[in-house]
Amino acid sequence: MSKKSASPAKKIPAVFAFQGERGAFSEEACRKLLGPAVAVMPCVRFEELFQNLKAGRAAGAIVPIENTLAGSVHENYDHLVNFELPIVAETSVRIVHNLIAPQGVPFSRVRRVFSHPVALNQCLDFFADNPQIERIPFYDTAGSVKMVIGEGLTDAAAIASAVAAEIYGARILRRSIESDRQNFTRFFLLRTPAFARRHPVRPASHAAWKTSLVFTTKNVPGALFRALSVFALRDLSLTKIESRPLRGKPWEYLFYLDFLGRVDSPNARNALNHLREIADFMRVLGCYPKGA
Amino acid sequence: MSKKSASPAKKIPAVFAFQGERGAFSEEACRKLLGPAVAVMPCVRFEELFQNLKAGRAAGAIVPIENTLAGSVHENYDHLVNFELPIVAETSVRIVHNLIAPQGVPFSRVRRVFSHPVALNQCLDFFADNPQIERIPFYDTAGSVKMVIGEGLTDAAAIASAVAAEIYGARILRRSIESDRQNFTRFFLLRTPAFARRHPVRPASHAAWKTSLVFTTKNVPGALFRALSVFALRDLSLTKIESRPLRGKPWEYLFYLDFLGRVDSPNARNALNHLREIADFMRVLGCYPKGA
Repeated sequence: MSKKSASPAKKIPAVFAFQGERGAFSEEACRKLLGPAVAVMPCVRFEELFQNLKAGRAAGAIVPIENTLAGSVHENYDHLVNFELPIVAETSVRIVHNLIAPQGVPFSRVRRVFSHPVALNQCLDFFADNPQIERIPFYDTAGSVKMVIGEGLTDAAAIASAVAAEIYGARILRRSIESDRQNFTRFFLLRTPAFARRHPVRPASHAAWKTSLVFTTKNVPGALFRALSVFALRDLSLTKIESRPLRGKPWEYLFYLDFLGRVDSPNARNALNHLREIADFMRVLGCYPKGA
Repeated sequence: MSKKSASPAKKIPAVFAFQGERGAFSEEACRKLLGPAVAVMPCVRFEELFQNLKAGRAAGAIVPIENTLAGSVHENYDHLVNFELPIVAETSVRIVHNLIAPQGVPFSRVRRVFSHPVALNQCLDFFADNPQIERIPFYDTAGSVKMVIGEGLTDAAAIASAVAAEIYGARILRRSIESDRQNFTRFFLLRTPAFARRHPVRPASHAAWKTSLVFTTKNVPGALFRALSVFALRDLSLTKIESRPLRGKPWEYLFYLDFLGRVDSPNARNALNHLREIADFMRVLGCYPKGA
């Protein structure tokens, strides 16, 4: 190891890990939070992404936490609890599907469209209007752009994000062909505990803050009611609450909870101390500016 | 229309709708609830399944409502609210992945394995133990069995449910190759309102019942706390609570809630009347025996 890399702060490469192929919606979230020039590290699995951040192979990581159609991503809540990597920001990305083809392939020549079956099903109006086009299920949205370009297909297109078109040098033939525009995914930006310590939460005059936490209670009637009283009694407003049965521990529940407020405000501090009296287990996952 | 089909009760075919290819995990749930001989109607989209049941083209429908890794299926909660088709039963299916090949293809000849990327990623220990086997992403688990059999591949296998192996006449080479056994999907059985009226909830001596409902509140601090008080004050135990922001209505929330109890018990009736005072909107989605 060279002397230059002796400082842990210097060793960490300025790349941000996400799960999926280049051009995935996670990469779009990454650009939204960190700018279009951000350097990324695609990972095959979510666990790999958390491991890379924990081990200092990435400066941060972007994880999807819930989707307006598919629900919360419990796997990532589990990783947040186990890896103890703090949330420092959130953002939402609208899932916009674009018809993407190799350069030089006009819309009139497209006869086949590849994409993930969920994406194909979210563009049914487009396919109803264009019965000459066949839908072909593929394992990934961004991966379908990669394949159509890589194979040099001249009668085919893919459905994916605008970022995927840019990354694989493809052309967007039709923008926003999804039938339902109310499809959003919420992402967290995670950093190392050391980074979070160097950049503490600071009260900004008008900014709203959110705090995310998990806790468990015994399943006695009214347990959640008592837990929520610690927020209600202090006029702290919840923006998310979700229960999840604890596997292997019948009758015990894990709760995800987000409230509006800074974790260092006297009100929130009192509420969390009160919650610690009631909950079997409690962990703050992060405190971050509320996304737009 | 013949005279024979004049009675609406007779017209409805005894088939049960589900979303996906034949052999999907939904079909496994369907057999678990209705027996191995149940006749099924595969549908491409969830909405189609609800439409088929509503229009009397099916006697019932099976819908996944939450998965222990992927979370709640918000789309199906939306359909439950909009279609008003009552839940009459629930069940949980453990997601067991099997290695499935055409008859006559031994394990030693398998060089490629097709399946949905999520399924492939849930079998990483198997692939680590068998480095000679290549993983190939495919759009669907049951669909990958259909394809491997249909194409008559002699060096390939698929990963899917045991039901898929049976349906496509394939052979299970290795059972339960998933790394994580804590992967369950909860399903609802839906019927028509007419069926639910003919088969009302009956108090069984020892059986536990569950009631599922949705409601909305204004996002004022403590709104959820007040809503939960109607259950806590009557010692009714919650088994699920989840908030979801209402799209297009900032600061308003929809809640999914399950509690243990029969909707026709005096206690539950009082709680629901009390909740109606507090909630902007409330609908009971169904009352059904608690699954094992």
